[in-house]
Amino acid sequence: MRIDADMSARLFAFVGGAAGPWCVLRTETLVGESLPDTERLDIVSSPDLSTGSTARWTLRGITSNERYVVREEKGRLVSAQQGLGRSEATCAALIPIRKNAAWWALTQDERRDILETQSRHIEIGLQYLPAVARRLHHCRDLSEHESFDFITWFEYAPAHEAEFNVLVTRLRMSPEWKYVEREVDIRLRRE
Amino acid sequence: MRIDADMSARLFAFVGGAAGPWCVLRTETLVGESLPDTERLDIVSSPDLSTGSTARWTLRGITSNERYVVREEKGRLVSAQQGLGRSEATCAALIPIRKNAAWWALTQDERRDILETQSRHIEIGLQYLPAVARRLHHCRDLSEHESFDFITWFEYAPAHEAEFNVLVTRLRMSPEWKYVEREVDIRLRRE
Repeated sequence: MRIDADMSARLFAFVGGAAGPWCVLRTETLVGESLPDTERLDIVSSPDLSTGSTARWTLRGITSNERYVVREEKGRLVSAQQGLGRSEATCAALIPIRKNAAWWALTQDERRDILETQSRHIEIGLQYLPAVARRLHHCRDLSEHESFDFITWFEYAPAHEAEFNVLVTRLRMSPEWKYVEREVDIRLRRE
Repeated sequence: MRIDADMSARLFAFVGGAAGPWCVLRTETLVGESLPDTERLDIVSSPDLSTGSTARWTLRGITSNERYVVREEKGRLVSAQQGLGRSEATCAALIPIRKNAAWWALTQDERRDILETQSRHIEIGLQYLPAVARRLHHCRDLSEHESFDFITWFEYAPAHEAEFNVLVTRLRMSPEWKYVEREVDIRLRRE
């Protein structure tokens, strides 16, 4: 089979354990089953790499095409957003979520209506650019063994932590979040 | 990790080789790289099952939430469509396709516009219900090793074969198909 270089760069594993450049500050379970506490987090982009014996858990996700953003929003996102790995962005959040069966039974137009018309998910996110950099990973269709539907990785400078907390609070208060049945929020600092 | 029974029922492997209830009548490559010819096809829904030494190729895909259908279309689909496995539906087609990078760079509204407003993909499909039963499988986000983006499995009675040929011809003439960079069409008969 053909291996597409673009695709192997899309798969990421988040490995909670004793190793990795990210130090776990706290793990909060918002809804559903928790994840075991760990001290460090490693992010590996080679999916077949053994994650080693120190791993307590591994969450995998793949970046994909955008499922809800329309062209006008895409233009604003592209012009405002910053990449990961900025030297000043020493704070991070790893937020895996799982949505319930009712969400997945909705049609595309109904999901877009809840996500943006009712919840302003994309609009709210735009208000925190460029301070907060973000990468969304999809897990739901990766295999039958995944515990979450999405993993979002955020990076920001310490000066923007309060703002980031407002961002996630606003999203959690939205109609879209009524469909979230599992959510863990892990905060980290790069060492 | 939690294993969701719903999810393990969503993953299918199409195994081309010397075994299986489906006899391969012909394999046509429409665009891009072909697949090796085989005599038989087996469909297994247990993803970890070894596919045996007779397999020449295995294509995997997972059923997922619908990405383009709106509620009104969903209502018409649900009321008209038939399930797989009807005794009279002894003809089948396995059509894996891959879309190009330009397709995946489009936003959701642009893809929907091409797929339905310009190409009438959902509307055309509706015209061939209930004669043609169909199951769509997504491959693109399953891993970094998949050769196709989608696999569609169709079943119909011999009396509807000409109609089915018109259906796929109409779709291949549509603007959406300009984005297809690999397509193989395998026709089969159940024995």
